[in-house]
Amino acid sequence: MTPAHPLLTRKPVVPGFRAAGIHCGIKARGRDLALITSDLPATVAGVFTRSTVVGAPVEWCRERAKSGRGLAVIVNSGISNVAMGERGRRDARRMAEWTARAIGCEAEEVFVASTGVIGEPLPMTKLRAGIPRVARRLRLEGLGDAAEAIRTTDTFAKTAGIPVRLGRRTVTVAGIAKGSGMIEPNMATMLSFLVTDAAVSKVYLRRVLREVADETYNRVTIDGESSTSDTVLLLANGAAGNPRITGPASPGAAAFRRGLGQVAESLARDLARDGEGATKLVSVRVQGAKNAAQAELAARRIANSLLVKTAIFGADPNWGRILQTLGAGRVALRLDSVVVELCGVPVFRRGASAGSAARRRAARRLLDDEVEIEVSLGAGKASARVWTCDLSYDYIRINAEYTT
Amino acid sequence: MTPAHPLLTRKPVVPGFRAAGIHCGIKARGRDLALITSDLPATVAGVFTRSTVVGAPVEWCRERAKSGRGLAVIVNSGISNVAMGERGRRDARRMAEWTARAIGCEAEEVFVASTGVIGEPLPMTKLRAGIPRVARRLRLEGLGDAAEAIRTTDTFAKTAGIPVRLGRRTVTVAGIAKGSGMIEPNMATMLSFLVTDAAVSKVYLRRVLREVADETYNRVTIDGESSTSDTVLLLANGAAGNPRITGPASPGAAAFRRGLGQVAESLARDLARDGEGATKLVSVRVQGAKNAAQAELAARRIANSLLVKTAIFGADPNWGRILQTLGAGRVALRLDSVVVELCGVPVFRRGASAGSAARRRAARRLLDDEVEIEVSLGAGKASARVWTCDLSYDYIRINAEYTT
Repeated sequence: MTPAHPLLTRKPVVPGFRAAGIHCGIKARGRDLALITSDLPATVAGVFTRSTVVGAPVEWCRERAKSGRGLAVIVNSGISNVAMGERGRRDARRMAEWTARAIGCEAEEVFVASTGVIGEPLPMTKLRAGIPRVARRLRLEGLGDAAEAIRTTDTFAKTAGIPVRLGRRTVTVAGIAKGSGMIEPNMATMLSFLVTDAAVSKVYLRRVLREVADETYNRVTIDGESSTSDTVLLLANGAAGNPRITGPASPGAAAFRRGLGQVAESLARDLARDGEGATKLVSVRVQGAKNAAQAELAARRIANSLLVKTAIFGADPNWGRILQTLGAGRVALRLDSVVVELCGVPVFRRGASAGSAARRRAARRLLDDEVEIEVSLGAGKASARVWTCDLSYDYIRINAEYTT
Repeated sequence: MTPAHPLLTRKPVVPGFRAAGIHCGIKARGRDLALITSDLPATVAGVFTRSTVVGAPVEWCRERAKSGRGLAVIVNSGISNVAMGERGRRDARRMAEWTARAIGCEAEEVFVASTGVIGEPLPMTKLRAGIPRVARRLRLEGLGDAAEAIRTTDTFAKTAGIPVRLGRRTVTVAGIAKGSGMIEPNMATMLSFLVTDAAVSKVYLRRVLREVADETYNRVTIDGESSTSDTVLLLANGAAGNPRITGPASPGAAAFRRGLGQVAESLARDLARDGEGATKLVSVRVQGAKNAAQAELAARRIANSLLVKTAIFGADPNWGRILQTLGAGRVALRLDSVVVELCGVPVFRRGASAGSAARRRAARRLLDDEVEIEVSLGAGKASARVWTCDLSYDYIRINAEYTT
């Protein structure tokens, strides 16, 4: 697998950003309320679920993101605000208002997210008491606590940060994320909050976040579903004092984009690694596709194939299922040029199995907890990458047996 | 659930068609070679996998189906002919030639199919000896034996037949099918062979089979995959002596189409019921869609959602997952008009849960082995239906643990 970048840290601190995570009583135990604030007005960009059914916090954030300005993000876990209509909107607005009062800003400068059980109303009394408390805990080293507080069924908190050299200055890009853990009785939600002390224009921040999200968060698939509340926010407060990055030609733009990509990729890989019931992180890379759309289609077919995912769970080097799902997805390929490699071992090439010795070698490597599937289609030059996980008994248990 | 048609039989006999199924030694035990023949030259129509990777028997059948004429279908199970290139083509042609010799016709009048393990060569010596033997067993009552002989991991043989009144004559439509059982180390294959003693023109037979297959076989989804060998063939030999049906306006055309649809639907439901690891047949019906494409998209989203399928396995009336997967699939809907019914119990309506009493009632009905999901989208008038099954531990076991 690609080694993690040596400068990546799991305990990031970003100048001018404070964070906290506390237990306010929504979950039976564990942190359930997170707050991230910027000491300076920040430029904000967001990408949101493309679902036709969205929760009230997403509506609120979309509206706020239009201004491209913000100071804080308040997030609760345990119960999700997915009330339909006026009630959901009112609860989202109140969370923003209470946060604004606690830290001294306008409600319109506060972004809101919510994840957890649906079907129960948000416990507004607990939030009203909890928000001033979490605000009092804000600190520079608080991102880890915030990452804890946005977890639902995630088995570990997800953080990443990296320093980025922009000319003579060093800025930091950092973020937290929660994954696709299912909560009774509903919905996987992916949330990620990124912060940087770089100075970046609103227009470029939007563009770079959209591009990076497309290559990272949007390339994670656990079970082919997406949620009504998926949200990624990026706050850039300029505390580093670098010359503002206003476009791809600005000094430092490429380094900034690369750093943001490394943080987002690290979080995205952690999301896949922590998919429900997952025993393995599976990285799928497709090359030699006719065009970019075909490359992505091919990678997603493989990553979402139940037959491939169960084979990986069973450590079975089953190239047949990979070819089958590509065929069924009507992916253009030249069978006599196709190469399928599993963990670096070619198991299919020149239109035929690479033989039983290769098969055995691949089977041994498939026992690792990080697995690579690489397919060359022989139809062109485009490539794509997707991360997923295997499909195990635990996925069924988690999703069929949470009632009682 | 829709009750089976009272005239449907599991032991069909069709005048002028003989069939047999024997053990020729490809499987360790059980029938593995099926033959169906017509006493008269028959009109033949076929629909085949749309995979971009297809097996040699599909290539052979597609070529033969162009003429629209045929006399026999030979099918082996146990090992699948998916050899690439010349070898696969030669083996398919030989199966046709040996069958032609055994029953006295041309190889070009014989259709060929093959299902089972891939990666091993077809045991041609066993087939060469078995084909004359199966030909000697041909009899009018042999369709059940043929259905047994095309099974792979199917847990029961699938047959259906129905008499159809065409003016003063009664014809019969009957068929057999095998489902999406996975065989080590590869591929789900759906095969179905239909026969009728009605006289039908080549052009209309093609049209009616394509239409009926779209409404039945193509509406079954087990795990969203399709195989490199999916094949449906329909032979009409005219033994009934009815005035030839040449188009939808011909006398009896509507009755014939209806009968064919009933047989195909019965087989399709059996395919879903017998999906790998299935504990329940799940019928999904979507109404109120903006158009037919949206209706089908919505029904397929629901039927292929792992979260919905695991909820059904757990007998959980989880309308949230149904709405979520529709949203993620970008299905047009008006949330305040949406109604979700599970086994006839409305669990979501007017933008909200129908309450815990309805939920409990639905949960009890979800314990049945036939389950209905009905969704009204409130966005238009189009509807669609799809059959699937739940997703259980056994699916994982079958697909992850077949290696020893």
